[in-house]
Amino acid sequence: MNVDVDLSPLREYLAAEGLDGYCIDDDSSDSDQRYVSGFTAPDPFQTLVTQDGVHLLVSGLEYGRATAEADADSVTRLSEYDYQELVVEHGSHEAKSRTLAAFLEDHGVDSLAVPRNFPTGTADGLRDRGIEVTVEPEGIVEEIRATKNEGELEAIRESQRANEAAMARAEELIAQADVADDGTLLVDGDPLTSERVTEEIEVTLLRHGCGLDDTIVACGADGADPHNRGSGPLEAEELIVIDIFPRNKETGYHADMTRTFARGDPDVEARRRYEVTRDAYEAALEAVEAGATGAEVHDAACDVIEGAGYDTLRSDPDAETGFIHSTGHGVGLDVHEQPSVSPSGGELEAGHVISIEPGIYDPEVGGVRIEDLVVVTEDGYENLTDYRVGLEPTVE
Amino acid sequence: MNVDVDLSPLREYLAAEGLDGYCIDDDSSDSDQRYVSGFTAPDPFQTLVTQDGVHLLVSGLEYGRATAEADADSVTRLSEYDYQELVVEHGSHEAKSRTLAAFLEDHGVDSLAVPRNFPTGTADGLRDRGIEVTVEPEGIVEEIRATKNEGELEAIRESQRANEAAMARAEELIAQADVADDGTLLVDGDPLTSERVTEEIEVTLLRHGCGLDDTIVACGADGADPHNRGSGPLEAEELIVIDIFPRNKETGYHADMTRTFARGDPDVEARRRYEVTRDAYEAALEAVEAGATGAEVHDAACDVIEGAGYDTLRSDPDAETGFIHSTGHGVGLDVHEQPSVSPSGGELEAGHVISIEPGIYDPEVGGVRIEDLVVVTEDGYENLTDYRVGLEPTVE
Repeated sequence: MNVDVDLSPLREYLAAEGLDGYCIDDDSSDSDQRYVSGFTAPDPFQTLVTQDGVHLLVSGLEYGRATAEADADSVTRLSEYDYQELVVEHGSHEAKSRTLAAFLEDHGVDSLAVPRNFPTGTADGLRDRGIEVTVEPEGIVEEIRATKNEGELEAIRESQRANEAAMARAEELIAQADVADDGTLLVDGDPLTSERVTEEIEVTLLRHGCGLDDTIVACGADGADPHNRGSGPLEAEELIVIDIFPRNKETGYHADMTRTFARGDPDVEARRRYEVTRDAYEAALEAVEAGATGAEVHDAACDVIEGAGYDTLRSDPDAETGFIHSTGHGVGLDVHEQPSVSPSGGELEAGHVISIEPGIYDPEVGGVRIEDLVVVTEDGYENLTDYRVGLEPTVE
Repeated sequence: MNVDVDLSPLREYLAAEGLDGYCIDDDSSDSDQRYVSGFTAPDPFQTLVTQDGVHLLVSGLEYGRATAEADADSVTRLSEYDYQELVVEHGSHEAKSRTLAAFLEDHGVDSLAVPRNFPTGTADGLRDRGIEVTVEPEGIVEEIRATKNEGELEAIRESQRANEAAMARAEELIAQADVADDGTLLVDGDPLTSERVTEEIEVTLLRHGCGLDDTIVACGADGADPHNRGSGPLEAEELIVIDIFPRNKETGYHADMTRTFARGDPDVEARRRYEVTRDAYEAALEAVEAGATGAEVHDAACDVIEGAGYDTLRSDPDAETGFIHSTGHGVGLDVHEQPSVSPSGGELEAGHVISIEPGIYDPEVGGVRIEDLVVVTEDGYENLTDYRVGLEPTVE
């Protein structure tokens, strides 16, 4: 997917620093690489941004596809620099440095900015050949990526539609389960486990064109650890946190949503936490608009949760229960990207896509988290999520 | 999964070069990181190998899990070096350098080897603090990873069982399809497409605990491009290449298998190419044993294919039809890893897991590829693949 990238902030940086170009040396699992090149490939390739264009250096195996698909002004094959002969003579490590140095020379690049994660092997090889290599410390490309255009928003909406279908399947399984005498949820006589719900979620996502990194279906104390994916039988009267973050296999764009359910009659404290989390989620959404900061949105959620008597990392930086993560994060080619909706979160801009996901956690009670995905607009936000908020699982 | 890693070749390298330690700074999608640390985490962490142990530096969020799960002699939290305070004062980039430098100092490390893909931002930050950083150019950890122990072999076998189930599902779909008057394969009256077969393969893999990177179901001219994933309706009398390379979601180990099918009555040249490819595959397998080189195994496949009158990259380095890739590659945490079964392939050792996958390609005829996964033994190989070889799709 070509997203009509505006690299002017990167070019302004190069001009200000007096550097000739910016180079990414990675495969397209690096989202900056995928975004700037408009190309996906499983093996590393090199993308050079100069004042006059975007130039790719690729293997012969990828050349045809890169020429057809990449968002580049030029595509060059390794073989133009006799790469294979250099490998035989000097080994692949040295051959790569020599080839890239020659490519840079052909583009008039003597001084190069690189991202923080640029390979040290490549950087040192270029320096050995007299090219100045400077790390760009701010992550300018990730900042550019934070603002989505309409094509990117459409891709994210499509992933969120898949997410909603998967969440509906999970909710249905929980809603329709029988409850054994010991409280275990049963389907067809067998325990309904986290693993089984996760599998149904992931199959649903696949059927909707999405892959997945991981999925969280965490019950009881598991759900009180925000990073625990959950395992074992699901139980009635316990809080069940379901967090799904699919990635469309074609576009590469993610979505993100969390709901919390409980079958039967969860205790009054669990219900109260659900209502407080819901209030915090609504307060945070209310605070979203272009010009507000991520920190202000986070504060809005913290105000509600602290006001109800629970700890946050704002009230106690060492808290191990309560609201123990930030309110949200950017979502795009990476499931966690800029901007941050946290104490360090800067100004939100129209086109930023962010999650809003407050929660309250305690192993004694379980976890609650409610998460929607929204796009920031000039006067508020558009919610990219179309899914009911409610503790009791129901079937449409 | 802890695999009882033998890092002695890495420690011998450090001793020979007079370096104090070896550091990986990456998340666990880097297979060297996952292998050496025995830990999986979505965000970068640092693993330090010294003569006396393996030491991890992780965020507070990962500390509990790292302590319980990692294959490490010590685990240290970023907060022990006041990381958050350093972020507030100096920004995250500088904070990371300072924290890692202090961690290295605590382990008596003044000089450090790093992998080629070590982040330049981290390397430069350490150098600014007086630590000597040298790129280890050979990929010693990947060499160590090439030899699998029994636990790793068991993990690979499990992934290949999932692969076999998925291949059987694909073969069944093709075998049972109706054939329209224009030759299109039909299921329930709709065209059977690459996308539909791929979806069934991937759902089957999920049901067997595997995720996937990509799957190839390529018909006709699509199949003549070894990197084309395939799209659109499948046709009778055309060659259909199916290449599946799943990864177990828990262990992280891959499998790999390719079969080629044709419905109806493919022409005599397609049949001939199938038989030649099968002979090449058998000849290559015959050549596999500890002490043989990957180049010799590759030559055995080339001999058969050239003998039948087709080009290989050995007979013509610029060939665009014929056998236009190498015979195989190592498979493990990465789907492509050491050793290489190609003209540059070195000596095979017992415990190496390699694919054997010759093929013959031509857009005019289509592609044929047959691939098994085997483990090298002292006197030959054990085939990790249990799947019939045959052009005509059948249902068990």
